[in-house]
Amino acid sequence: MAIRDDRPHYLIAPDPGDERLTRAVTGQDQTGAAVETRVVEERPLTIFLNGQEIVTAMTIGDYPEYLALGFLKNQGMLQPGESVLRVDHDDDLETVVVRTDGATRYEEKLQKKTRTSGCAVGTVFGDMMEGLEGLTLPQAELRTSWLYALSATINRTPSLYLEAGAIHGTVLCKEDRPLVYMEDVGRHNAVDKIAGWMLSEGVEPADKILYTTGRLTSEMVIKTALMGIPVLASRSGFTAWGVEIAQQVNLTLIGRMRGQRFLCLAGEQRLLRDADPAHGDDEPAKQRRKGARDG
Amino acid sequence: MAIRDDRPHYLIAPDPGDERLTRAVTGQDQTGAAVETRVVEERPLTIFLNGQEIVTAMTIGDYPEYLALGFLKNQGMLQPGESVLRVDHDDDLETVVVRTDGATRYEEKLQKKTRTSGCAVGTVFGDMMEGLEGLTLPQAELRTSWLYALSATINRTPSLYLEAGAIHGTVLCKEDRPLVYMEDVGRHNAVDKIAGWMLSEGVEPADKILYTTGRLTSEMVIKTALMGIPVLASRSGFTAWGVEIAQQVNLTLIGRMRGQRFLCLAGEQRLLRDADPAHGDDEPAKQRRKGARDG
Repeated sequence: MAIRDDRPHYLIAPDPGDERLTRAVTGQDQTGAAVETRVVEERPLTIFLNGQEIVTAMTIGDYPEYLALGFLKNQGMLQPGESVLRVDHDDDLETVVVRTDGATRYEEKLQKKTRTSGCAVGTVFGDMMEGLEGLTLPQAELRTSWLYALSATINRTPSLYLEAGAIHGTVLCKEDRPLVYMEDVGRHNAVDKIAGWMLSEGVEPADKILYTTGRLTSEMVIKTALMGIPVLASRSGFTAWGVEIAQQVNLTLIGRMRGQRFLCLAGEQRLLRDADPAHGDDEPAKQRRKGARDG
Repeated sequence: MAIRDDRPHYLIAPDPGDERLTRAVTGQDQTGAAVETRVVEERPLTIFLNGQEIVTAMTIGDYPEYLALGFLKNQGMLQPGESVLRVDHDDDLETVVVRTDGATRYEEKLQKKTRTSGCAVGTVFGDMMEGLEGLTLPQAELRTSWLYALSATINRTPSLYLEAGAIHGTVLCKEDRPLVYMEDVGRHNAVDKIAGWMLSEGVEPADKILYTTGRLTSEMVIKTALMGIPVLASRSGFTAWGVEIAQQVNLTLIGRMRGQRFLCLAGEQRLLRDADPAHGDDEPAKQRRKGARDG
């Protein structure tokens, strides 16, 4: 058994104490007693690319610059070789303007809208499958001990989910270490924020693992593949088209992770079964409840 | 205590045996053993209004006509007084064409897109708040015994969720009786299918309750309010904007329903606490897991 350091190595972790991200509201419980609770914020953020308004996203509002960059990148609206000159967020206007040295306009792409199955409204512009033709993700190793360690660490990390519920999380990981943990009312926003961070920091995707609390839909699989990440794992379940695309691009798709159990429906050849049962034993009740309906 | 008939009274219920809605796939479990499982389908469906392409939705594919009608209705694209002449579904082309006696075109509305926080990608065209100004939902009674009975019945109803996971459910109810139970990969699709059914059948909304497995986001609250339904209930949690809009339009918003517990964050005055604890006792483990992460 390898010696593990159990402290998380997050570069970015949720900040459940950030008062801008939740709001105190009062209501009544089943007995009529007054109850004060915290609920997550949900704010509009309008993304502009150079002079053009692209979309309004509903988001909790942290990391607007990463969200804008990652959204544009994942939509294929930033071309390889196109340089981002500036990203300006205006909190009052609820806008982010991404300025590049390109001048491409996307009217045609914008006219074709697909409502994907991603949680919290992933709008995809243009052809959803664009960029996937001929794409094959790089070979990589995926140890089952990493999966168990990641799951255990992420589930125990203080988060807005544990504080207020009604939110999705996505975590960029390397081996058994979670690196960047983003949360948002929309799961696609959490992924886009990770993509924006990777773009800003010039992070290599080939040795990474993406972990999500949400379902493994076509949208999630496509985003992960276009980001160049060869492994996508979740506590939740699959859709048929998500599985089909993962098989097509050779993405390792792991779902229904609960305690020691999981199901791999694509890219099994990356799996190395070195599992240490100590990291995969039964989960505490608090974790056990997570993600079932959404999966 | 009123005498209750415990048999569900569904007019439409999930059909987990419908083989078009799930697909058998094979993979491996954590031990490397081959496993066959069923996963939900996720198909594109392109909706046309008269000659105009409006949107492509990702859906499990049941009730395409209701989905198209309800989507257009909930987007404000069918005007009061506008008659629907025909709804044509083409299974091969994956299209639904809704034909009306109106000729309104929605280019301007279509240009403004908002990615909402609804699960599985609710795209909202135009101003999300359009139609809410001055709207106040009708007074109605809501007994806590109904909430407990509905929750117990719905959780025990055979569904695609119980069969394959990765799907959301929304149920139109009257008093303690669930009437129409729709499921879809997108929660917003499930609601739109209910709206389409109500429009087709001329169903009165004022005495109904909408139950959803998903989160109580702004999108869900707005859709429910525009449908004229005064009560929205869920096992899952709230967003701040969802709560704010519910308070504004006087919608009764019930969340975090688990066993006997729930939280009411808007429209408390409709609640009549006649709860019968026999319907609200602890849930079996299978039900207890549902919906936590998504809430």
